[in-house]
Amino acid sequence: MLELRLVQGSLLKKVLEATRELVNDANFDCSSTGFSLQAMDSSHVALVALLLRSEGFEHYRCDRNLSMGMNLNNMAKMLRCAGNDDIITIKADDGSDTVTFMFESPNQDKIADFEMKLMDIDSEHLGIPDAEYHAIVRMPSTEFARICKDLSSIGDTVVISVTKEGVKFSTAGDIGTANIVCRQNKTVDKPEEATIIEMQEPVSLTFALRYMNSFTKATPLSETVTISLSSELPVVVEYKIADMGYIRFYLAPKIEEDEEDMKH
Amino acid sequence: MLELRLVQGSLLKKVLEATRELVNDANFDCSSTGFSLQAMDSSHVALVALLLRSEGFEHYRCDRNLSMGMNLNNMAKMLRCAGNDDIITIKADDGSDTVTFMFESPNQDKIADFEMKLMDIDSEHLGIPDAEYHAIVRMPSTEFARICKDLSSIGDTVVISVTKEGVKFSTAGDIGTANIVCRQNKTVDKPEEATIIEMQEPVSLTFALRYMNSFTKATPLSETVTISLSSELPVVVEYKIADMGYIRFYLAPKIEEDEEDMKH
Amino acid sequence: MLELRLVQGSLLKKVLEATRELVNDANFDCSSTGFSLQAMDSSHVALVALLLRSEGFEHYRCDRNLSMGMNLNNMAKMLRCAGNDDIITIKADDGSDTVTFMFESPNQDKIADFEMKLMDIDSEHLGIPDAEYHAIVRMPSTEFARICKDLSSIGDTVVISVTKEGVKFSTAGDIGTANIVCRQNKTVDKPEEATIIEMQEPVSLTFALRYMNSFTKATPLSETVTISLSSELPVVVEYKIADMGYIRFYLAPKIEEDEEDMKH
Repeated sequence: MLELRLVQGSLLKKVLEATRELVNDANFDCSSTGFSLQAMDSSHVALVALLLRSEGFEHYRCDRNLSMGMNLNNMAKMLRCAGNDDIITIKADDGSDTVTFMFESPNQDKIADFEMKLMDIDSEHLGIPDAEYHAIVRMPSTEFARICKDLSSIGDTVVISVTKEGVKFSTAGDIGTANIVCRQNKTVDKPEEATIIEMQEPVSLTFALRYMNSFTKATPLSETVTISLSSELPVVVEYKIADMGYIRFYLAPKIEEDEEDMKH
Repeated sequence: MLELRLVQGSLLKKVLEATRELVNDANFDCSSTGFSLQAMDSSHVALVALLLRSEGFEHYRCDRNLSMGMNLNNMAKMLRCAGNDDIITIKADDGSDTVTFMFESPNQDKIADFEMKLMDIDSEHLGIPDAEYHAIVRMPSTEFARICKDLSSIGDTVVISVTKEGVKFSTAGDIGTANIVCRQNKTVDKPEEATIIEMQEPVSLTFALRYMNSFTKATPLSETVTISLSSELPVVVEYKIADMGYIRFYLAPKIEEDEEDMKH
Repeated sequence: MLELRLVQGSLLKKVLEATRELVNDANFDCSSTGFSLQAMDSSHVALVALLLRSEGFEHYRCDRNLSMGMNLNNMAKMLRCAGNDDIITIKADDGSDTVTFMFESPNQDKIADFEMKLMDIDSEHLGIPDAEYHAIVRMPSTEFARICKDLSSIGDTVVISVTKEGVKFSTAGDIGTANIVCRQNKTVDKPEEATIIEMQEPVSLTFALRYMNSFTKATPLSETVTISLSSELPVVVEYKIADMGYIRFYLAPKIEEDEEDMKH
């Protein structure tokens, strides 16, 4: 038996909006430690990893490990029916082929049960090793989303270059080129407005903007985003989920040949 | 000669938005008692009845009964040109084949006259007998609209079940099922936020969500909606129009065979 | 070398949104006195003339006269990437085939360079003689925009008639007719809310609403619009750009035959 009660139900709504553009069907894995998801996007280029730790739930009961296959668009349809202030409870009986989402309005006047059919989804859980990154950039999540969106109106790929002074996002397309530089800035009124760069060595990597824009659907989950870059590794774009966990997106850099392919 | 001056012109704009999705062409009937409309929707399943009593107008002159056939989409196009604070006057000469809508801005700086051609529309006025209902639910209109919209993302029909404790809205579709229960609640800060159930006997009836969603276009007209249910009668979904009258929608329940038809 | 620094960068964003619907490609002319543009719309019916005087820029360097051909949609794509509070600098080297737009955020944390390819565009600069107008109407720009939009839902052309008492906008279409009268009104709380008519003689002219609606894309640039009418001349619809200059639209009146053409 599974019963997970999340007072801040809107978090779960935002998680779905953050993932469903990348992933159609995925297994949610429930264990005593938390509620998690790991899935490749449908073109097998990007990886999304979600963790909501058990401590973040008001009530968390998971008698045995359970993997529930869900269609994320259908799940999002149901979660959109929850009010933003609703408490959401996820319930499943052992061996059942359905999951129930219960939405309670703050004053308990309105109680909704949405029951969704589960799916069998083949998936293998990839081990993601801890890694050392050449550069880690933390910046306001809305700023990062705005930059990815703006550059998309000019080109298809973004070059992210980190130096001690700042991080540069560049693109080129038929109508011209664009460079946006965000300077390191720790002296801001609110810590979440800071742009902070931890750099071991300069790095410059190229990524498809299409995926970056998908990742920024997670912007409502966190005021800051952390971008971890190494020349030999996929970039990690991470949004912390207040006190509960995170959603992380992994994307391999494009190598020169790839870039040429895209242009021609 | 007809001259009806409505200080709160936005009411008429809202009435048009509430009806024009259901009804294309309809006769507006003017008499000494008020301005009214009764029309079947284009598939002859739902009925809409509107009444704006003469007392609600600042000035109301109707020398003889008049039935004016109007295309509601064209009428809505004209009324959308009225500002939300404008005073609207409806004018028609006896025997004329046009109607004039006059819009006056609050400071009288801007005066608009929109003249619309009338149509000949065959219609028979149905007598709607007063009836006893098994259950009458009064609830916030935005809540009802939200529920109809939410359930539409899951299924095509809604089962409305009333007991003393509350009213339950249920649906089922390919992706799963949904039940939303609103509990009776009279102890609210504002009377319009109450959910009040008057019940003679429990009732459970099935309706097409498509029509329910059309009815909820009247939500801007009133903060509350009243739903009157009896097993042998069409449901009545009523929105009161402040001090002036009402707009009522009638819809026959679906019987079992109908439901089966919809699934296959 | 050209370097024009505009602290209120949003002005340039608004100028582009105001012109790009009418004109696809145009030459921006830079001289020591200012930054200007003059172009016919693509169907050669309307003319747009823009002037931003050099005094309005924080820094204005233009070593020699320069005409830069730009695709306005591409330029708008780039300018949309500027924040509304950004400082915009336009830069070009002599003989270069590109122009650079630099956007600086108010706190200087984010600096963007967008480089756009220039085009060769044939254009002849029309001399627009100063003229005497029969009637000049100054009114709130949002009011004029609302009227053009409203009338477009009824008809294709607008008749603008000016008398001492006011200005009347009329149209007719399949569903009926509309007349909107704005009375002269100088006694308002805020001067920009006034409707002021300077009239030598009454005038009544007909224009295509499609162009008028395009002109009103300039509404965000100014709280008032000035409409100058003479029976023998194109109308001038002018939006002042705070302390810097103006954007003016010229459109020839329709003559009777034209009107008949449009109906049949």
